[in-house]
Amino acid sequence: MRAPRGQSPASTSMSAEWFRRRFLHRVPSWGRGQSEPRVWGTGPGDTMGPQVSGRARPASPFPYRRPKFLRGVGPPPRPDPFLDAQIRPRPVYCPAPDRPLPWNAGYAEVINAEKSEFNEDQAACGQLSIKHREFGDSEDQEWMILCQEEYVTGCYWALFDGHGGPTAAVIASNVLHSCLRRKLEDVVGGILAPQPPMHLSGCRICPSDPLFVEEKGIQAQDLVIGAIEEAFQECDTVIGHEMTATGQSGGCTALIILYLEGKLYVANAGDSRAILVQKEGVKAVSSEFTPETERRRIQHLAFIHPRLLANEFTRLEFPRRLKGEDLGQKVLFRDYNMNGWGYKQVEKSDLKYPLVIGQGKQARLLGTLAVSRGLGDHQLKVLDSDINIKPFLLSIPEVTVIDLEQQETQENDVIIMATDGLWDVLSNEQVAQLTRTFLQDNRHDSNRFSELAKLLIHRTQGKEQSTWEQSSTGKVLVSYDDISVFVIPLHHKK
Amino acid sequence: MRAPRGQSPASTSMSAEWFRRRFLHRVPSWGRGQSEPRVWGTGPGDTMGPQVSGRARPASPFPYRRPKFLRGVGPPPRPDPFLDAQIRPRPVYCPAPDRPLPWNAGYAEVINAEKSEFNEDQAACGQLSIKHREFGDSEDQEWMILCQEEYVTGCYWALFDGHGGPTAAVIASNVLHSCLRRKLEDVVGGILAPQPPMHLSGCRICPSDPLFVEEKGIQAQDLVIGAIEEAFQECDTVIGHEMTATGQSGGCTALIILYLEGKLYVANAGDSRAILVQKEGVKAVSSEFTPETERRRIQHLAFIHPRLLANEFTRLEFPRRLKGEDLGQKVLFRDYNMNGWGYKQVEKSDLKYPLVIGQGKQARLLGTLAVSRGLGDHQLKVLDSDINIKPFLLSIPEVTVIDLEQQETQENDVIIMATDGLWDVLSNEQVAQLTRTFLQDNRHDSNRFSELAKLLIHRTQGKEQSTWEQSSTGKVLVSYDDISVFVIPLHHKK
Repeated sequence: MRAPRGQSPASTSMSAEWFRRRFLHRVPSWGRGQSEPRVWGTGPGDTMGPQVSGRARPASPFPYRRPKFLRGVGPPPRPDPFLDAQIRPRPVYCPAPDRPLPWNAGYAEVINAEKSEFNEDQAACGQLSIKHREFGDSEDQEWMILCQEEYVTGCYWALFDGHGGPTAAVIASNVLHSCLRRKLEDVVGGILAPQPPMHLSGCRICPSDPLFVEEKGIQAQDLVIGAIEEAFQECDTVIGHEMTATGQSGGCTALIILYLEGKLYVANAGDSRAILVQKEGVKAVSSEFTPETERRRIQHLAFIHPRLLANEFTRLEFPRRLKGEDLGQKVLFRDYNMNGWGYKQVEKSDLKYPLVIGQGKQARLLGTLAVSRGLGDHQLKVLDSDINIKPFLLSIPEVTVIDLEQQETQENDVIIMATDGLWDVLSNEQVAQLTRTFLQDNRHDSNRFSELAKLLIHRTQGKEQSTWEQSSTGKVLVSYDDISVFVIPLHHKK
Repeated sequence: MRAPRGQSPASTSMSAEWFRRRFLHRVPSWGRGQSEPRVWGTGPGDTMGPQVSGRARPASPFPYRRPKFLRGVGPPPRPDPFLDAQIRPRPVYCPAPDRPLPWNAGYAEVINAEKSEFNEDQAACGQLSIKHREFGDSEDQEWMILCQEEYVTGCYWALFDGHGGPTAAVIASNVLHSCLRRKLEDVVGGILAPQPPMHLSGCRICPSDPLFVEEKGIQAQDLVIGAIEEAFQECDTVIGHEMTATGQSGGCTALIILYLEGKLYVANAGDSRAILVQKEGVKAVSSEFTPETERRRIQHLAFIHPRLLANEFTRLEFPRRLKGEDLGQKVLFRDYNMNGWGYKQVEKSDLKYPLVIGQGKQARLLGTLAVSRGLGDHQLKVLDSDINIKPFLLSIPEVTVIDLEQQETQENDVIIMATDGLWDVLSNEQVAQLTRTFLQDNRHDSNRFSELAKLLIHRTQGKEQSTWEQSSTGKVLVSYDDISVFVIPLHHKK
């Protein structure tokens, strides 16, 4: 991905102001304009960083680093220099066993096979303390508020898979949970009420207001979903502002799990995935958002605003890019309003580059991006053009709710969250089978969830196969991507 | 619904021309300008028809009537004049037992309890013969073509639930299958090929064209889905043209089932429903499209084109319509990009009438329409305004495919298709239970599928309950709506 063009900082929005107040006083001293060699570079071919730019840029308050909970984990074992770089085993990192994560969750990560210099995945987890003031606090009771403050505690696990450099993922891993806490604090009174009140103040203007809320089926979990949706959008705004201000570029996917008041909220924007593994089955609890899965939304936007394609792309989908010889032929095509396929007579405008091209892992939006939802990418343009990709991207996640109080959980029930590198190689069923066997065989190992995360990553590294080997199903057996995995045991909570 | 305003006929599209050529020479003589008393009226309060209009209108080629396959069915038994009209048993019509429908399917219908004068539901079914010419026919082989013509035979069942009069449903029941046949004939070569060819002509421009088609996963069924999607849109155009030309108004939902080459295609636009009932379970094979289920699409359109609301509606959803006292309060709301709920401070513009209001059966689009997909409604406007409703409506159905060759069907496996009047009163599980018991008890009755359709309707007529009675779940036990039911036995085909 190209280095961003020089741009003046966007006008400071309220969110961005809050962000500056909230974070900038925390910047470590070496992060403020001092030289921290290569901290901001992202990979081979990248030319980012204050040293390279022709003009001075403010330093970002978030330097590249691995997740906080990996601090104190020793350096990787020295690689065997006689092995080819492609098959040289890459170190897999886990948190130190004496510093357990929330719910004793497991975690492991591996960097890509020299595809880029930095691990573009980032992770975060921790407790989320949401300040709660009772309704009806008025100014003359202000002295009371300090005593009345209470906290509702949640848990949070998050994976961010960066592209075009690690910067967006680094910012998201530092910021999203704060956005989420603020948004939850805004509505926590409604969440804790027996039923969300029509008016947040708790006042009742129509006698039947509670009935209207009930008829709409609005529950506390809908406020949490709304807060998560808003938090993703705010985080996206903060990333846009920060990247513009510091002359950075890139974006990231975001998959988070929030535990609050007995329920798990799985929110996903991008191509990471979470699955629920139980003794009797496995099911995905998130969906992937790619140019293929969101084809109709993307084509529809191009139908409504054709200027977004700058006359260089066609919004229609064909099995391959068309060429001169296809002119006049009737070829297979799909438009925004079709799930099926039809035939259309090829005209000259159909020979343009398609809005979405390729399939599976090769599918690309405007020839550029492999995901259709996520955070960042505000500056991303189609190579050698002025066509912006951001208008086609959504920062809104899809949220799935798992009610742990309704669900019968057993000892080895876990949620596996991982970035796409894992799922490119292992199916949900394969991961479930490895999980069940490993947890059954290691039930007395208190560190077994991180060991499982490590095992899953090892299974993608293809030690036992020749490189680039493919299975009979055409699935690649080796991953050279960054991979990060959380294993969240559900029984722990119970 | 109001009578349509005088409008000049829309410019004649290709479809409309085809329609005129295709249908107008078939019009029965009494349909051409001669008086056919009350044929075009639609119900109490309606003032449509050539007699009423101030200017002469061409007569429509499709007068009101009941489905063709009910011809010869005797008049209804005389109602007991001593019973109140609301609880007086209404006659339920079935086809004559000696004129079986395709696959020996069952059918029954009942008219609403004097809510309107005509039954606004319409039904159609029959064989669909699709003409197929082999690829590569060239002009010098034209003498051969006559001999080479072959027909692929499908089956078709359709229900249309009209609103604002029966006219749109009448036209759709006469036209949609013809649109469908034409669209299928356009692509039948691709459907019958071992794999749909990239070029309909069968020529191969790139050697790897078949590979591109395979990588996209394009199968014959995708061409059928595409043809169904196009047929619905063409039928909608024809209805729009015909209604404008004859000064009619109204719209209808459309639920069709097409059987072709071993597969059932269930296509739905509106709030009718089809379910698959088997010994071991029941599942819906269609989804409903209402202002509630399509809220986000409708709100998004209003966000993109605010002028569609003419400054009279707000696109935001609130639990109830807001009023002056709510100003300044933080109230529950949802916008197009939210699945969850949030709180917003009420401004003056939030006091406008909501784009979608009400819930369940009471939900209305622009205060007017209970469905968000269907055919017709080209002239429909919000009462006493110039706000068009059509831009918010989709004529595209959602298509579900059931592969009967993959599916293990048993003797009593059936699909039940019915208009919303049935599903307002009976749940999928209740219908499934009645179906299993009835078919088991009547396995030797060759007329049992129509008898079952009749039984299902009788169960909605509330003979054993007091009128307007409600169950403990709040579900109404009596329907006063038009109801039409097809029962399609799947084992018959095997």
